[in-house]
Amino acid sequence: MTSDDTATAPAPGTGTGTDLHIELPAHGARRTALAQALRDAVRSGRLAGGTRLPPYRALAADLGLARSAVADAYAELVAEGWFTARQGSGTRVAEGAATAPSAGATTGPAPERPRHDLLQGKPDPASFPRGPWSVSARRALAEAPTDAFGPGDPRGRPELRRALAAYLSRARGVRTGPANVVVCSGFANGLRLLASLRPRDWAVEEYGLPFHHGILEAAGVRPHPVAVDEDGARTQEIPVRARTVLLTPAHQFPTGARLLPTRRAAAVEWARTTGGLIVEDDYDGEFRYDRKPVGAVQGMAPEHVVYAGSLSKSLSPAIRLGWLVLPDHLVDRVLAAKGLRESWASSLDQLALADFIDCGAYDRHVRRMRHRYRNRRDQLVAALASHAPQARVTGISAGLHAVVELPPGTEAAALRSARAAGLSLDGLSGYRHPAATTGAAREGLVVGYAAPPEAAFGRALEALATTLRGRGPRPGFEGDGRSRPGGGTHEGITTGS
Amino acid sequence: MTSDDTATAPAPGTGTGTDLHIELPAHGARRTALAQALRDAVRSGRLAGGTRLPPYRALAADLGLARSAVADAYAELVAEGWFTARQGSGTRVAEGAATAPSAGATTGPAPERPRHDLLQGKPDPASFPRGPWSVSARRALAEAPTDAFGPGDPRGRPELRRALAAYLSRARGVRTGPANVVVCSGFANGLRLLASLRPRDWAVEEYGLPFHHGILEAAGVRPHPVAVDEDGARTQEIPVRARTVLLTPAHQFPTGARLLPTRRAAAVEWARTTGGLIVEDDYDGEFRYDRKPVGAVQGMAPEHVVYAGSLSKSLSPAIRLGWLVLPDHLVDRVLAAKGLRESWASSLDQLALADFIDCGAYDRHVRRMRHRYRNRRDQLVAALASHAPQARVTGISAGLHAVVELPPGTEAAALRSARAAGLSLDGLSGYRHPAATTGAAREGLVVGYAAPPEAAFGRALEALATTLRGRGPRPGFEGDGRSRPGGGTHEGITTGS
Repeated sequence: MTSDDTATAPAPGTGTGTDLHIELPAHGARRTALAQALRDAVRSGRLAGGTRLPPYRALAADLGLARSAVADAYAELVAEGWFTARQGSGTRVAEGAATAPSAGATTGPAPERPRHDLLQGKPDPASFPRGPWSVSARRALAEAPTDAFGPGDPRGRPELRRALAAYLSRARGVRTGPANVVVCSGFANGLRLLASLRPRDWAVEEYGLPFHHGILEAAGVRPHPVAVDEDGARTQEIPVRARTVLLTPAHQFPTGARLLPTRRAAAVEWARTTGGLIVEDDYDGEFRYDRKPVGAVQGMAPEHVVYAGSLSKSLSPAIRLGWLVLPDHLVDRVLAAKGLRESWASSLDQLALADFIDCGAYDRHVRRMRHRYRNRRDQLVAALASHAPQARVTGISAGLHAVVELPPGTEAAALRSARAAGLSLDGLSGYRHPAATTGAAREGLVVGYAAPPEAAFGRALEALATTLRGRGPRPGFEGDGRSRPGGGTHEGITTGS
Repeated sequence: MTSDDTATAPAPGTGTGTDLHIELPAHGARRTALAQALRDAVRSGRLAGGTRLPPYRALAADLGLARSAVADAYAELVAEGWFTARQGSGTRVAEGAATAPSAGATTGPAPERPRHDLLQGKPDPASFPRGPWSVSARRALAEAPTDAFGPGDPRGRPELRRALAAYLSRARGVRTGPANVVVCSGFANGLRLLASLRPRDWAVEEYGLPFHHGILEAAGVRPHPVAVDEDGARTQEIPVRARTVLLTPAHQFPTGARLLPTRRAAAVEWARTTGGLIVEDDYDGEFRYDRKPVGAVQGMAPEHVVYAGSLSKSLSPAIRLGWLVLPDHLVDRVLAAKGLRESWASSLDQLALADFIDCGAYDRHVRRMRHRYRNRRDQLVAALASHAPQARVTGISAGLHAVVELPPGTEAAALRSARAAGLSLDGLSGYRHPAATTGAAREGLVVGYAAPPEAAFGRALEALATTLRGRGPRPGFEGDGRSRPGGGTHEGITTGS
């Protein structure tokens, strides 16, 4: 580490008068250097167990860093077990940290291996709109009617159901009113409720989240995987037996296709003629980058579709809030099932979200994140184009993840080298339903590009591109923009940067 | 309605220039009168659909009422469907309210029947500490590490687990550290997790919450009811088959006994010798009025007891937060079960609660509520002593509810007349486990005294005393302070007022 710069920040409140000497490079990865300097200070004993660290803002000012950079460095050391953070008493050096950092902590003299979190499913935690959310939470708390502090209504707070009905109508083309909205604690919670009411045969997309497949299985559902290709699920092939079909029309998860209009129509037609139910998982419907998001299938047939959404991608999975928009005939049945399941979400969070939507902060946040994620996706596509031109990003320009297609038989090796390079991500084959029957499993990497800190994203992409160098589709498939080994075809994506 | 007083408040922001003429009596139930005047104004068409109501504070100032009284009246009309409330756009008259008030709304010209909510299980919603909670929530949000906005840890936030471990050690005699605390979304959520891990034979108290019995049943548990008398559950009689026993040692629910020390010892001895597990439901352990609360049984045998608590009585059921303190050998198993159940609680609420505990606000709130509930219990005992001297309040001086004992064969009639008098409450017999075998079901009324608004509590007690006049134990049982028809005996309670 070069040390062009030395700052000294007193550590107050410890009673020991310890001073904290931190040496940082003048340029470059100063946040990483700060974390390492703090680790060194603990390991060497300069920062003793129990020592209180200076407040973020004091240390940030002393070092000429952003407050968030100091906060992130502290958080990293808390996660590694070097520090403990406690509300009201600040961040302290963990007792025994010098001799026995907890599992997962960096040990040894020069252990630096950056970890890049490219697991799908997570929005950028550093972009949480603390200020606007705090304003909404405070206002909602001050204005809440007294009954908000009593037992929650299984339907959810009326304020939130009204706000969601208006927002979803406007932003996602959902046709509904507050009476058909039921708040739950996330999509999985809603899926579990629906499975308990309809425990028979479900058609599911052959690629999906194993966690969701597990929920259906636990409820005794018999799954019927439906093939997925570059136009989304082949809804014209929903098996006769199925009474319910689980779809991700806006952005097939995880393969990334949008459901072709004729296939949307086929799904609705299936529901109308058979009396079947469509469950529309609109997990990232707000994030479309190449055009205005296509409206929900629910808008075509509100009596045949359950529309499901949550905050997990659009704001944060830390707030356990999701929603179901139900056909009239299901509202009472879902509420009855819910009544015994104690699956209410926090009323205070519900009121805060209602305010957050009503005052426009939710729209602003989604717009801001759409811009950021779009840039990240563009960077991903560009990095692969220049460093690993054989690798191909499939699916539409949308969402918080992309699939990088790989030739058959190469996914496992690619995952191994990705992990060796410090990348956390999943292979595509793991998302295939165990009962899927069409052809061989596709192979690829599912790359979540939303979660890494802004400053680290470039390095993450570099590591990914290095990993993929020479691993793209074999020359025999090059130049063939659509056909692919797994039997299906994908849209090639050109994203302007 | 006498109208000694007329106030006019302009209804701003409607564009119609509507003035709101409200006539209230100078004294008496002015909040009720306000609600009725508002209903009349909507019904008569003076307040048209869509009209925006004046802000609480403006109308309160004009009428010389507390702001909370106006807020409560508005909330009542929202609940009844006359008004709609929306964050950011205030309260408005519901469209169509004049012609078609929704189900549950008061209709007809003079429908006034006060409803008194004496259902057990609810703390006073009007006492929610909005200010201190708001301070904690804001501070927690500002200081939260970035990872707080990512996917939640199934164990719960470390800040909260540390705060709870310290608080429960200090206030409830629980022996634990943060590593053994698992946050869940309420007691029911925790019970469901435990039942899924131990789906065999459970001993349960023969009186308890049917909702909890239902959770065990849904998990496939075989229940073995254990007799309950004036010294709590007869733990010396836990059936050999039982592997787990669910107890409410601090305050048997709902009969109100505390578990005798020798019976606490018997339960621990049973667990030690059989390898069985005690699940200690400490639902209202902080609220003891005649002495310092007795510490948790968990403190006697941390390796054999799961201690369970929640915010539902101490702060509010609207915040879905509870906790399990687990023996070492159960931590990983509970986390594994939880992982698939998506039962995390809101990270933001968890951080707010950690701060709320750490800064002393939780202790202050509990002290304040202990004082208030103690007064209410004293008032209940005094009201019955003077108006219905035959009625007897059983159980220790603690908690948020009391049982008023009734002679056999009279509970159903007492419930009917209570309901006719506008009282919402439950009969004791409904809390008896369906598989209980000891003697006949006891009869009585389970009176929750925490929830009614402070101003309405006196009238609620009056209505209850009137209902019970002449319904106490038959003369044959008078003067016999302990024996009772149901076969068990109860402590007579004398509470200083």
